[in-house]
Amino acid sequence: MARQIVTLTTDFGHNDHFVGVVKGVILKLAPETDIVDICHDVRPYDILDGAFTIAQAYRYFPPRTIHMVVVDPGVGTARRPIIATGDVYNFVAPDNGVLSFMYAKEPEHSVRHVTSEHYFLSPVSQTFQARDVFAPVTGWLARGVETHKFGDPITDYVRFAPPKPKPVNENTVQGVVLKVDRFGNLITNLTPEDLPRLFQEDPPPFKMTVGQKEVNKLNLAYAQSPAGEAFVVVGSSGYLEVSTNRGAANRILQADRGAQVVVTLG
Amino acid sequence: MARQIVTLTTDFGHNDHFVGVVKGVILKLAPETDIVDICHDVRPYDILDGAFTIAQAYRYFPPRTIHMVVVDPGVGTARRPIIATGDVYNFVAPDNGVLSFMYAKEPEHSVRHVTSEHYFLSPVSQTFQARDVFAPVTGWLARGVETHKFGDPITDYVRFAPPKPKPVNENTVQGVVLKVDRFGNLITNLTPEDLPRLFQEDPPPFKMTVGQKEVNKLNLAYAQSPAGEAFVVVGSSGYLEVSTNRGAANRILQADRGAQVVVTLG
Amino acid sequence: MARQIVTLTTDFGHNDHFVGVVKGVILKLAPETDIVDICHDVRPYDILDGAFTIAQAYRYFPPRTIHMVVVDPGVGTARRPIIATGDVYNFVAPDNGVLSFMYAKEPEHSVRHVTSEHYFLSPVSQTFQARDVFAPVTGWLARGVETHKFGDPITDYVRFAPPKPKPVNENTVQGVVLKVDRFGNLITNLTPEDLPRLFQEDPPPFKMTVGQKEVNKLNLAYAQSPAGEAFVVVGSSGYLEVSTNRGAANRILQADRGAQVVVTLG
Repeated sequence: MARQIVTLTTDFGHNDHFVGVVKGVILKLAPETDIVDICHDVRPYDILDGAFTIAQAYRYFPPRTIHMVVVDPGVGTARRPIIATGDVYNFVAPDNGVLSFMYAKEPEHSVRHVTSEHYFLSPVSQTFQARDVFAPVTGWLARGVETHKFGDPITDYVRFAPPKPKPVNENTVQGVVLKVDRFGNLITNLTPEDLPRLFQEDPPPFKMTVGQKEVNKLNLAYAQSPAGEAFVVVGSSGYLEVSTNRGAANRILQADRGAQVVVTLG
Repeated sequence: MARQIVTLTTDFGHNDHFVGVVKGVILKLAPETDIVDICHDVRPYDILDGAFTIAQAYRYFPPRTIHMVVVDPGVGTARRPIIATGDVYNFVAPDNGVLSFMYAKEPEHSVRHVTSEHYFLSPVSQTFQARDVFAPVTGWLARGVETHKFGDPITDYVRFAPPKPKPVNENTVQGVVLKVDRFGNLITNLTPEDLPRLFQEDPPPFKMTVGQKEVNKLNLAYAQSPAGEAFVVVGSSGYLEVSTNRGAANRILQADRGAQVVVTLG
Repeated sequence: MARQIVTLTTDFGHNDHFVGVVKGVILKLAPETDIVDICHDVRPYDILDGAFTIAQAYRYFPPRTIHMVVVDPGVGTARRPIIATGDVYNFVAPDNGVLSFMYAKEPEHSVRHVTSEHYFLSPVSQTFQARDVFAPVTGWLARGVETHKFGDPITDYVRFAPPKPKPVNENTVQGVVLKVDRFGNLITNLTPEDLPRLFQEDPPPFKMTVGQKEVNKLNLAYAQSPAGEAFVVVGSSGYLEVSTNRGAANRILQADRGAQVVVTLG
């Protein structure tokens, strides 16, 4: 049987011992596990950003991978620890909506409330439950404990709707910037399905307004434009992105996450 | 036998090839080793910060884990490379005090001066001895070479006392901010043992002065306070922290590492 | 047989899911692989910086290691994916010169154009080919597919010359800052071979001009100078570096990558 893989997605950053300690706790329980970092720079306390990050990544891992996702502003309160099970993956997370985008992609998912406290470290701190709750639960799962041993199924788990594009009129759709990536690309919540005419043969002209500026060009690749020119491209996640070649679109357009995006055709 | 685990704690950051090269050197000697990063963002040259970081983390790893800790402003001088052995862990580090907090937690520790230069890379550079000295020593240890082969025990190793809280009078204790974490929490050197009355039933009112501001509230969890309000909480390391819910206490209080903290009861 | 090791060198940073997804793709194909990060903070789009980084690091890994190097401003254009083979390592990269410094160190290298698209993910995005092309090629290589199965040898691969020091007159050599490391050390392209008289017994006095300032001291180790004084040291890569003890030379000299460096003897 292949090695058990565990991934980590958190807002813990790299400044502290937090991520290392989480790995130590998992490895103490399941020393043969291979632990892979997906991202630890989720915006602090930002559940939507965490939900977006894990949803972009989890399907690229081998079946049976356990994804631990901890963005947990409610640590120490009554919010529940959960194990969610999709088609071929398990997820360990706080029940605060951080798995919402995954739920949308995995119609057959189920969720359990983790109540078997003998799987936790003792005592459980009120401020670092990634170490005391989520890591040991992940470690025991990695070691082969079956999900039903951790607690009972629930159906009232927290789940929010991803921000949806809004048609304004026949020619205009309004969206939002979901994320700014390392290169300054503005990833919107718009997909080609929201603007089918733009992706037909012989598409009409368009303008996309982001921040105070307009973008009028649709590219296939970053390097099709001269440096400094902003354009739209269908990014690797399937969303429309505003980009520039060898530059940072967020700086050129002075737009950040949450900025409104309006696309008008014709 | 379980896989050998090695952890790394350094001030090398993420901007360069340094950490990757250290891992390559270890894996060349002990290819089956599992190498785990604890932290590479120790403040540059800051031995106290390194000592704090490894002390918070090492106990969460499986027995037999080798912890390599390199914060080494004296690289290329006469400071000695050492192997320290605690209850169930080995540590490889420069002898500059970076293991001081570990020594305090491991009463049975012993320390060897590493003098067997045939375990080093050759030639040894004067500026990157993590690559040329500490990584190969760690690699040979991981491969099973016994500690006594590397050099003789010493007792005059460098060890500094952690900054201790100072009682000012019966009702007042003075401490210091040891670290600011990723979330802006101010971790002090005060523990509940330094303020026992505050943690009894029916505690007296208190004020904690940090920077120019006062904090008067003691929380069990971050989310007990509204966003923006500063409060005290017993953090996951056992120290009192000054925090805010979904915000950065260091910015609200304009305090950084080294700031004085004064707690007055009643 | 020892575990297959794969290293990653990219400009993807740590802000996104990019690196995690690359690892997932590799592990899905070759689950027993050990993946090691060399650096993900190559300057965005900076092929020279990527070439420098991998050249400093690759030789420290065990034979048979596969080095994946993706700094790819031309993603989605006609630039070719390649597998380069040196003495004991394979490299997977875009054909844009990012392996130039390695070619210079490995006289016996050969290069193949990867054309066997059945080894790619499908569909191939135009913006994230580390995920769709380079990672799966690396994964199949790690799984044991032989290099000749991926495509034919080429000889017209892109290769640029590293910036060479220029002798100005008998006593003067001009160079450039190749990189500023995490500690603010300015790594130049000058080596002791470019200034042999400086490294003989009884060397003449010298001045090195960097930015607006002059440096006159040659050290063996960082800690030989008082804090704040700039000096020259032969760094761990074999290049002359301008450094200060426990400080950041780049800030003291107000010099960045690309700054001119002039050394005059006597």
